[in-house]
Amino acid sequence: ICPIGTFSFPSFNNKTTFNGSFYYCRICRNCQGILERLNAGEVVIGDGGFVFALEKRGYVKAGPWTPEAAAEYPEAVRQLHREFLRAGANVMQTFTFYASDDKLENRGNKLSFTGAQINEAACDLARQVANEGDALVAGGVCQTPSYLSCKSEADVKAIFKKQLDVFVKKNVDFLIAEYFEHVEEAVWAVEVLKETGKPVAACLCIGPEGDMHGVSPGECAVRLVKAGAQIVGVNCHFDPMTCVKAVKMMKEGVEKAGLKAHYMVQPLAYHTPDCNCQGFIDLPEFPFGLEPRILTRWDMHKYAREAYNVGIRFIGGCCGFEPYHIRAVAEELAAERGIMPAGSEKHGMWGAGLEMHTKPWVRARARRDYWENLKPASGRPLCPSLANPDGWGVTKGHADLMQQKEATSKDQLKQLFDRSKSH
Amino acid sequence: ICPIGTFSFPSFNNKTTFNGSFYYCRICRNCQGILERLNAGEVVIGDGGFVFALEKRGYVKAGPWTPEAAAEYPEAVRQLHREFLRAGANVMQTFTFYASDDKLENRGNKLSFTGAQINEAACDLARQVANEGDALVAGGVCQTPSYLSCKSEADVKAIFKKQLDVFVKKNVDFLIAEYFEHVEEAVWAVEVLKETGKPVAACLCIGPEGDMHGVSPGECAVRLVKAGAQIVGVNCHFDPMTCVKAVKMMKEGVEKAGLKAHYMVQPLAYHTPDCNCQGFIDLPEFPFGLEPRILTRWDMHKYAREAYNVGIRFIGGCCGFEPYHIRAVAEELAAERGIMPAGSEKHGMWGAGLEMHTKPWVRARARRDYWENLKPASGRPLCPSLANPDGWGVTKGHADLMQQKEATSKDQLKQLFDRSKSH
Amino acid sequence: ICPIGTFSFPSFNNKTTFNGSFYYCRICRNCQGILERLNAGEVVIGDGGFVFALEKRGYVKAGPWTPEAAAEYPEAVRQLHREFLRAGANVMQTFTFYASDDKLENRGNKLSFTGAQINEAACDLARQVANEGDALVAGGVCQTPSYLSCKSEADVKAIFKKQLDVFVKKNVDFLIAEYFEHVEEAVWAVEVLKETGKPVAACLCIGPEGDMHGVSPGECAVRLVKAGAQIVGVNCHFDPMTCVKAVKMMKEGVEKAGLKAHYMVQPLAYHTPDCNCQGFIDLPEFPFGLEPRILTRWDMHKYAREAYNVGIRFIGGCCGFEPYHIRAVAEELAAERGIMPAGSEKHGMWGAGLEMHTKPWVRARARRDYWENLKPASGRPLCPSLANPDGWGVTKGHADLMQQKEATSKDQLKQLFDRSKSH
Amino acid sequence: ICPIGTFSFPSFNNKTTFNGSFYYCRICRNCQGILERLNAGEVVIGDGGFVFALEKRGYVKAGPWTPEAAAEYPEAVRQLHREFLRAGANVMQTFTFYASDDKLENRGNKLSFTGAQINEAACDLARQVANEGDALVAGGVCQTPSYLSCKSEADVKAIFKKQLDVFVKKNVDFLIAEYFEHVEEAVWAVEVLKETGKPVAACLCIGPEGDMHGVSPGECAVRLVKAGAQIVGVNCHFDPMTCVKAVKMMKEGVEKAGLKAHYMVQPLAYHTPDCNCQGFIDLPEFPFGLEPRILTRWDMHKYAREAYNVGIRFIGGCCGFEPYHIRAVAEELAAERGIMPAGSEKHGMWGAGLEMHTKPWVRARARRDYWENLKPASGRPLCPSLANPDGWGVTKGHADLMQQKEATSKDQLKQLFDRSKSH
Repeated sequence: ICPIGTFSFPSFNNKTTFNGSFYYCRICRNCQGILERLNAGEVVIGDGGFVFALEKRGYVKAGPWTPEAAAEYPEAVRQLHREFLRAGANVMQTFTFYASDDKLENRGNKLSFTGAQINEAACDLARQVANEGDALVAGGVCQTPSYLSCKSEADVKAIFKKQLDVFVKKNVDFLIAEYFEHVEEAVWAVEVLKETGKPVAACLCIGPEGDMHGVSPGECAVRLVKAGAQIVGVNCHFDPMTCVKAVKMMKEGVEKAGLKAHYMVQPLAYHTPDCNCQGFIDLPEFPFGLEPRILTRWDMHKYAREAYNVGIRFIGGCCGFEPYHIRAVAEELAAERGIMPAGSEKHGMWGAGLEMHTKPWVRARARRDYWENLKPASGRPLCPSLANPDGWGVTKGHADLMQQKEATSKDQLKQLFDRSKSH
Repeated sequence: ICPIGTFSFPSFNNKTTFNGSFYYCRICRNCQGILERLNAGEVVIGDGGFVFALEKRGYVKAGPWTPEAAAEYPEAVRQLHREFLRAGANVMQTFTFYASDDKLENRGNKLSFTGAQINEAACDLARQVANEGDALVAGGVCQTPSYLSCKSEADVKAIFKKQLDVFVKKNVDFLIAEYFEHVEEAVWAVEVLKETGKPVAACLCIGPEGDMHGVSPGECAVRLVKAGAQIVGVNCHFDPMTCVKAVKMMKEGVEKAGLKAHYMVQPLAYHTPDCNCQGFIDLPEFPFGLEPRILTRWDMHKYAREAYNVGIRFIGGCCGFEPYHIRAVAEELAAERGIMPAGSEKHGMWGAGLEMHTKPWVRARARRDYWENLKPASGRPLCPSLANPDGWGVTKGHADLMQQKEATSKDQLKQLFDRSKSH
Repeated sequence: ICPIGTFSFPSFNNKTTFNGSFYYCRICRNCQGILERLNAGEVVIGDGGFVFALEKRGYVKAGPWTPEAAAEYPEAVRQLHREFLRAGANVMQTFTFYASDDKLENRGNKLSFTGAQINEAACDLARQVANEGDALVAGGVCQTPSYLSCKSEADVKAIFKKQLDVFVKKNVDFLIAEYFEHVEEAVWAVEVLKETGKPVAACLCIGPEGDMHGVSPGECAVRLVKAGAQIVGVNCHFDPMTCVKAVKMMKEGVEKAGLKAHYMVQPLAYHTPDCNCQGFIDLPEFPFGLEPRILTRWDMHKYAREAYNVGIRFIGGCCGFEPYHIRAVAEELAAERGIMPAGSEKHGMWGAGLEMHTKPWVRARARRDYWENLKPASGRPLCPSLANPDGWGVTKGHADLMQQKEATSKDQLKQLFDRSKSH
Repeated sequence: ICPIGTFSFPSFNNKTTFNGSFYYCRICRNCQGILERLNAGEVVIGDGGFVFALEKRGYVKAGPWTPEAAAEYPEAVRQLHREFLRAGANVMQTFTFYASDDKLENRGNKLSFTGAQINEAACDLARQVANEGDALVAGGVCQTPSYLSCKSEADVKAIFKKQLDVFVKKNVDFLIAEYFEHVEEAVWAVEVLKETGKPVAACLCIGPEGDMHGVSPGECAVRLVKAGAQIVGVNCHFDPMTCVKAVKMMKEGVEKAGLKAHYMVQPLAYHTPDCNCQGFIDLPEFPFGLEPRILTRWDMHKYAREAYNVGIRFIGGCCGFEPYHIRAVAEELAAERGIMPAGSEKHGMWGAGLEMHTKPWVRARARRDYWENLKPASGRPLCPSLANPDGWGVTKGHADLMQQKEATSKDQLKQLFDRSKSH
């Protein structure tokens, strides 16, 4: 049952129904699962990227990017979940990115928790916060060092299976396979996740050029749908408009193949006009100099509208998304969703809160056309506006990408520095 | 007593002494207050700006900028305190910015908590987290609408007194008067704060051009020191290098006058090369389009070094500073302080964590010269690098700056929009 | 015969041969025509754009862009020919761009000379200067208002025929049909020009996206070669690298079709990374704000090398090229050509002349790696780096492009202003 | 007498008077000398920079920058004079920049003409073209290597005297001492030039920071006026707005001293917002990468208006000015001068010629507000908008600036390269 009174803001909405005893909101997790929502044509708002947000807060290490904080610093992870919920997110993704056992021990990363402990802690945190509002819990897996190192299909699938066992035990609401550079590995992941009977979403981290082996977005989507994914899309690696374009190509591919699917997109909150097929990894600014590229809330309004217009209904974010970015997505689509996010109590639409500012010239900015048309200056006149991305052109199958357990040696680093100078 | 074992990381340091019964760290709050530390030549790291960080997290409204979240959402405020502590901050400022009664009810701002409740809650949160590590609690006051509206000295001082009563009751470790555009009001604040006998720091939000009535930084500092402030400096409104330059001018003024003081700086984490005397308030991007101007951690290394070289020993941050920015300050000065921040467990110095990255070309970036010399691209080729700031040229004494309790009316807004177009 | 002593610098070269009586240079116009040179694998340097260069000098009106200066101000036109000759050009194009009768009277353009007078004067000037050095005279025709206005093939061909009569009378060395947006009209032009028996070169003003009706560069080139052009390529509308890319596609198309041709390129001297298929016409800066986009001489070195590497042997310039740009092309290919341009007497290779500069820090710039790696600043921090081009998407066949004899009326202008605001 | 019919365009003007026999135009050289014009409050338009314009045309070598082309290639120099005359210039400066004997033989520069021959040829060319219209001939001297090398006042004055002898022999209309970095040397020059009894103008190449020894613009101007200059100002080294600002400071200095003078300005046609006191010489782009900084004609409108408003009445250009830049100055001040330049026959005011363009979206740009508000893109997204200028901080008196006759040796160059890297 859906005791709509249990969450404080907003209580009633335009879908609320009464069954004689109780009011049902028809949009909360208790009323509807992910597929019911999407089938009903509703907009589902995803959350933002945990890895980058928690790195800035001091709980994730850039490089390994592993999520042991779920076990080490649960209050920090829980707080971020709450902020995204408050911003309007309908999905709490378990903080299990790169939580496969082979990744956790990659290149000398040493942890005090087992993979199972980290995955379990992440499920508990997501569930706890989801229960505080209208959100579903999604268990997530992503690409593995095993695949990059050319391990067998059986080996890679066994890696996914270990994480999946935790998700089943913790009874997540649905599953997301995301951040795959190669559609082949994503298909393997979907095949494993499908065994649970739970709804499965699958995202590649690709742009319009397709996956790292050159498979087009349309063809990638067809393969994922055929493997059993009910929701397909892209996440990470590119800016919102580029990701939306790639998902649009997926949609066209699926429809041309006479198949059916729902679509999702969870892009970067960074501008990436200069990226090639590997996305923002190749940018010289990755990962410690991306600040000038951070999207404003107004960029997010445009993104949300474009994603909606293209027919995408599961709209969220990845690296770089802070809670206010998700709130902007939710505010742009407030009319379509029939609800404003709780966090909008602290935000006037299109800058209306500035009506309360001390200075009259700032109050003069309290209007939509001001912010919609602003071309924000970078404040960095000694810097360029675009970068020359790295482009080593190596991917799975290339010796350079074989992963190792041991820490990178000084000799290895020396070789890398030398190579990067010659590029 | 200082039971150094009570905080987990790092336990011993190069100042640890043994008195026969206990080990004393000689750097924690129990061992030393703010003046003892500064007198000993130690570097004190401040925290970052709460208002902007919590706005992005969904707990502060841009426009009024009031800190009622201290009472409404204590877990969110506490979490941010913890992140700054972990980043290396030695000072927890109470989240009492704009918490004077006249500001809380400015322009139609409606709150469910009294000013006293908000100030008390903020003190409790700061103390709780300060006790978790080596940090002092600083009670903070800032400029008031009463002053801008030309109220009398007695009226303005009464406003400060109300906040001060809470700080005394909660026994903060020292006091900070900050974010004053007019040295006259700052002097009044210092005079009130001095009555408690606690150490007093005073910061103006000015740049090298001086205060809004044209008083030079050197002269401002002299007046503040004569009023009784033991620590003087600037906060907010300008980027780090500009703020450091202004504090340097303060220092020169104080020394020329034959006076003595300690110096502090808590700048923006935004690049502001195009600002005039009002600082970033005048930028067209303020406050919702500043993203491209956000400083990287490497910018912070340069800032910390420059501040140190100039002789500033209380070094922190204001609007735009996230925990990783403070951590970068602490890492740059780790040798001088003899300690690394706890948060560095999740950060390799100068990007060393990238040695664990999956992709070889990213591992090649795991070195200081790479990040130190990077000119980060903005990713926004349709945007300029500098902006034309507003410059209405009005300040205290001008009718335009008289504050009102009532919400801005539609007519008032219309007039402002029209005026801003003609500028 | 080739009296090599007749031109002053340099006299002998590595191809000079002696026939018993005279020395022959084997590269001058007297020794070889355009096809002989290209067949021998030699590099032929074109001249730069007259219309834009003379507009800046005060002899061409932007808008009509007609070449009546050939008759009105012969000394100005002659001087520009001489400068390009001195810069290393082997081809003097007659200044007959837009000199068709229908264009000369377009939109109220009033002239004191007939089309025949202008074309004849242009031929005389080109020949006079060509005789001062080693250069061929090329008679040029370009796209017509008649075609844009949907006149018949016979009508359009009659227009070309009138110019051609002058070229035959004045006995130019070869013919160039250039600046065609539609391959259909270019084919018509080639068919007319072929009747003379002189060598024919044909250039479209297109980029990699193909002509205005969507015909690919490869297919365009095939049609031109089949129509009888011995040299094909592109000119104008795009920056050097983009033009070279388009010519490369032409070459691939011709070779795939089992045909043979020589290739030429005469690009803009403006950077156009933001252009769509219509090229720089669509840029908001066209034609009076293009200055920031002007290429440096070092950009020209890269262009010349790239064009050469792709297999292009007729390498020149169009709008924006000043004599020093052509000189840079000739200097880059000095080894391949076995000759330095006369104008290099006033230019040290790669900035070597700076060895004579007064200031030591400027003398320190007298080296190749300095200039080759320089990223020149724009000095315009309030301006973007890329523009949003117009894109009305209209071309031949669309009513908007019907040309008229009468001056644009005020009503017509008003309508255009309104439409441009809505784009 | 002034036979106003001798120049073709425009014949009569609003000052034309009839003395019974003849019409006098009252603005031509025959009617009025430079001081008569300025005393009458008229605007005098200067010409543009020959050295840079002729370098691009192939007749001047960057580095030595000497004007031997006056003797070697008179037709090229004459053509440039004509273009500036046609653009509206009232002054033809003799092309005698760096034509002092000590400069002509600096650092291994070898010439086939004597200094006297070059100076005489330059006078003849200027006079010939001046006679073709309404222009005065100004003989020009500039700073000398002798001064930089700390030669005596007598030695330096002897250098000036040699050039002056030619000017007297050729009977120029007035004299300009320009491009002095040190006011001391400029004063010496004025003292020599005054001996002829001809009007003397004096320009420093300084900005608001003053001369290379730190003398303020106001003080510099006072010294020049006291030495006998009737016209003072600045030329070269900075962009127009900066130069106007410096001349304004000169004017204030002169007026404060109770003196009287006329004012002139001949700035760069390059944007230099990032320059320090040495001006564009210090920019990394000097002299071969300045293209992105070139001013548009619309920038010139703003410059001309600002210069006029400040009270400057002799308004011209220096390095970077092409004829169309001078024409824009003349067009902006057409109402004040009562005359349009001859060259405007080929230019519609504020882009009006575009009414004749083929494409409708370009015709839509035929209006003042379009061009006045355009922010031109650089087309260079990989380049910064500002540069970090060199700043060796050496000037006259420093050993580094001692000039030598011999060519720079390889060892000397090597040392310079090494030093420039460490800056």
